[in-house]
Amino acid sequence: MEGTRCKVLVTGFDPFGGEPVNPALEAVKLLRGKSFEGMEVVTAEVPTVFHKSIAVLDGLMRDVQPDVVICVGQAGGRADITVERVAINVDDARIPDNDGNQPVDEPIVADGPAAYWSSLPIKAMVQAIRAAGIPASVSQTAGTFVCNHLFYGLMNLIATKYPRVRGGFIHIPFLPEQTVRHAGQPSMSAMDIAKALEVAVRTAVDVRQDIAVGGGQIS
Amino acid sequence: MEGTRCKVLVTGFDPFGGEPVNPALEAVKLLRGKSFEGMEVVTAEVPTVFHKSIAVLDGLMRDVQPDVVICVGQAGGRADITVERVAINVDDARIPDNDGNQPVDEPIVADGPAAYWSSLPIKAMVQAIRAAGIPASVSQTAGTFVCNHLFYGLMNLIATKYPRVRGGFIHIPFLPEQTVRHAGQPSMSAMDIAKALEVAVRTAVDVRQDIAVGGGQIS
Amino acid sequence: MEGTRCKVLVTGFDPFGGEPVNPALEAVKLLRGKSFEGMEVVTAEVPTVFHKSIAVLDGLMRDVQPDVVICVGQAGGRADITVERVAINVDDARIPDNDGNQPVDEPIVADGPAAYWSSLPIKAMVQAIRAAGIPASVSQTAGTFVCNHLFYGLMNLIATKYPRVRGGFIHIPFLPEQTVRHAGQPSMSAMDIAKALEVAVRTAVDVRQDIAVGGGQIS
Amino acid sequence: MEGTRCKVLVTGFDPFGGEPVNPALEAVKLLRGKSFEGMEVVTAEVPTVFHKSIAVLDGLMRDVQPDVVICVGQAGGRADITVERVAINVDDARIPDNDGNQPVDEPIVADGPAAYWSSLPIKAMVQAIRAAGIPASVSQTAGTFVCNHLFYGLMNLIATKYPRVRGGFIHIPFLPEQTVRHAGQPSMSAMDIAKALEVAVRTAVDVRQDIAVGGGQIS
Repeated sequence: MEGTRCKVLVTGFDPFGGEPVNPALEAVKLLRGKSFEGMEVVTAEVPTVFHKSIAVLDGLMRDVQPDVVICVGQAGGRADITVERVAINVDDARIPDNDGNQPVDEPIVADGPAAYWSSLPIKAMVQAIRAAGIPASVSQTAGTFVCNHLFYGLMNLIATKYPRVRGGFIHIPFLPEQTVRHAGQPSMSAMDIAKALEVAVRTAVDVRQDIAVGGGQIS
Repeated sequence: MEGTRCKVLVTGFDPFGGEPVNPALEAVKLLRGKSFEGMEVVTAEVPTVFHKSIAVLDGLMRDVQPDVVICVGQAGGRADITVERVAINVDDARIPDNDGNQPVDEPIVADGPAAYWSSLPIKAMVQAIRAAGIPASVSQTAGTFVCNHLFYGLMNLIATKYPRVRGGFIHIPFLPEQTVRHAGQPSMSAMDIAKALEVAVRTAVDVRQDIAVGGGQIS
Repeated sequence: MEGTRCKVLVTGFDPFGGEPVNPALEAVKLLRGKSFEGMEVVTAEVPTVFHKSIAVLDGLMRDVQPDVVICVGQAGGRADITVERVAINVDDARIPDNDGNQPVDEPIVADGPAAYWSSLPIKAMVQAIRAAGIPASVSQTAGTFVCNHLFYGLMNLIATKYPRVRGGFIHIPFLPEQTVRHAGQPSMSAMDIAKALEVAVRTAVDVRQDIAVGGGQIS
Repeated sequence: MEGTRCKVLVTGFDPFGGEPVNPALEAVKLLRGKSFEGMEVVTAEVPTVFHKSIAVLDGLMRDVQPDVVICVGQAGGRADITVERVAINVDDARIPDNDGNQPVDEPIVADGPAAYWSSLPIKAMVQAIRAAGIPASVSQTAGTFVCNHLFYGLMNLIATKYPRVRGGFIHIPFLPEQTVRHAGQPSMSAMDIAKALEVAVRTAVDVRQDIAVGGGQIS
């Protein structure tokens, strides 16, 4: 019965910061070709723009009616897939977004809580990605740019409008072709990123109660 | 008039993780020899133990009656002085604390908010430390070990018991003598750390409204 | 006419240092499936053992009679393909080799020169690999373990026994599955490494006079 | 008897690459205030210019008649004191020197050997610096800019004109005030650098036969 299949929305950002591609978008596109038994996976692009990204996500959630939402963004400089634990209620941009906005220490949602936790099984997702041969870890910060912004916006939409949806955020490394111009930075192939996202989607759907394994940082 | 002088409490942790010293404590001790015009600076040691550290801090705040509290901890691997922006309500320990506790994904304060912001002028503090010739930056995560735990506990004590106190957390690098055994890790001399803390204390007391300069991270 | 086709020998090491695989060997094996017009590519495995590796290489060079030799090794921790510039006449092993040898500051070849240069077009190879979308750079040190040892041994064999052969060494990153257990270390997929080696082989054969583009390090 | 005291020449470079100071020079200057029993330490500045630096060093060696020469240079990005093992006969400059020269793949000394070894007790120096509480290690590459150039030039002068002199090169980190503008880069205080150089000078004079302890790199 179609109606009972779990529906997953996966978003990727358009390129920013002078990059010709955004690996998040490229990897999310690769998900389209994969078959997910027992679930339906919808992929979409969101703009790398403060607030507009949240508005676009709100529209997608209204139209798609997903059970699970996973937003994906690029974390240049990280070597592995990082599943984010927490989104904080602040924008502090080191570079302008794609509309030229560069907020400093502004709340994302006035009177919103200081932070929202991911409601995905982040430890189980990390464990499953690693079991698939791809390095992954929990991240304690999604930064203060549009990635954290959209992650916070997603969790705020869930808290205020879509209470039955579960959601979270995944950061991915540069693609190899990007690091040709970023000497010494780590990268990951689009195929491996897509494979990690596929595993992450399945685990997010299958695991309701996260596992209790360590994934913290001393500092 | 003595009564109107600003009182500052600065804490450092005892050594942990097999380290013979804790640079936080060493640097905090060096503050004792410095003269702070117009303010009184009290230094104290707290145990690197979940919950006990908060209980000790509570006792210190009750006894010392500080206007400003700055907790200081070691962030091995970081190259500069990092002024923390936010504390999150979770313990996730990769190593045991000094009493052998190793919680995984436990809240610090049941029913506490997901996060607390530092109430210190973090951007002004970073700017002042840098102006003194010492590298510094804002950090978006204090980790998930005892440092973040005490930072969260401090802000929760302020929120619930000491509403007129302002507080925050500063992470400092390894000392050079520690990195003899941590090949390739950055370090900072105890004298430079103490100088940075001195500047941080003065700025925390003097600046009530933080400045609006960027200090964020893309991711 | 078959006899005039350029013959290339590419070697990879067996696993060492507790690793279950050696990406060098895996990537070198992937070369076997590729078609190289106008040239013949022979791949072989060499042991990660001081001196024995050179003896095996000598046998291979005698049997295969290659025009070009490229030895490939793993450089855990490096993020890109690194084409080595120079081999130095010293063994200084931080870990034992696969036969338990752990020499400290011993010459590889008694009375050999302090160093040998690669005789491959290292700058052209780096440029071509980067043009193929894979990060690459020149390296100024191949270390002091078996990789540098074999590189030095190769160039010494060329200098003393096979004067018409051209040769050099390429270091490659960890594979993703290895960095599951090496948190935070960069990696590269076996497919991308094999693609880089394919480009390197073609360039090594085609370019006799290296190009004059920068590839140095300040320090 | 004055005549039998060991004479040590220590050189530092003038600032380059847009830096207002060169930590090498600052640290070398601090050596002047230290008392070295049983030896005479002469410090001097050399220009960060290809070939001119060697000519200046030649003049200093002729005038000072040192027994030991230690050249010191900045290695921005390194976290510890690095005692160089080997100098290679190539200039490959990523940035212009202070006279605007930017050679690519040119030999330093035409017909010179590919490399020269340091003739200082590099392992004993590293061990002694570490025993003084300052992180240190052996480096297998001095780069391909003016530091390696002067190191090679020094060893070539020793090989061809001053056979009884022993010499080598030490790289030092950024100073803290430099890393205010190089976010995330490690640094070391001028006092700690000077202390390390003092220990290095004493050890270079005292130890004629280097100790056999590991100091190599896998890659």
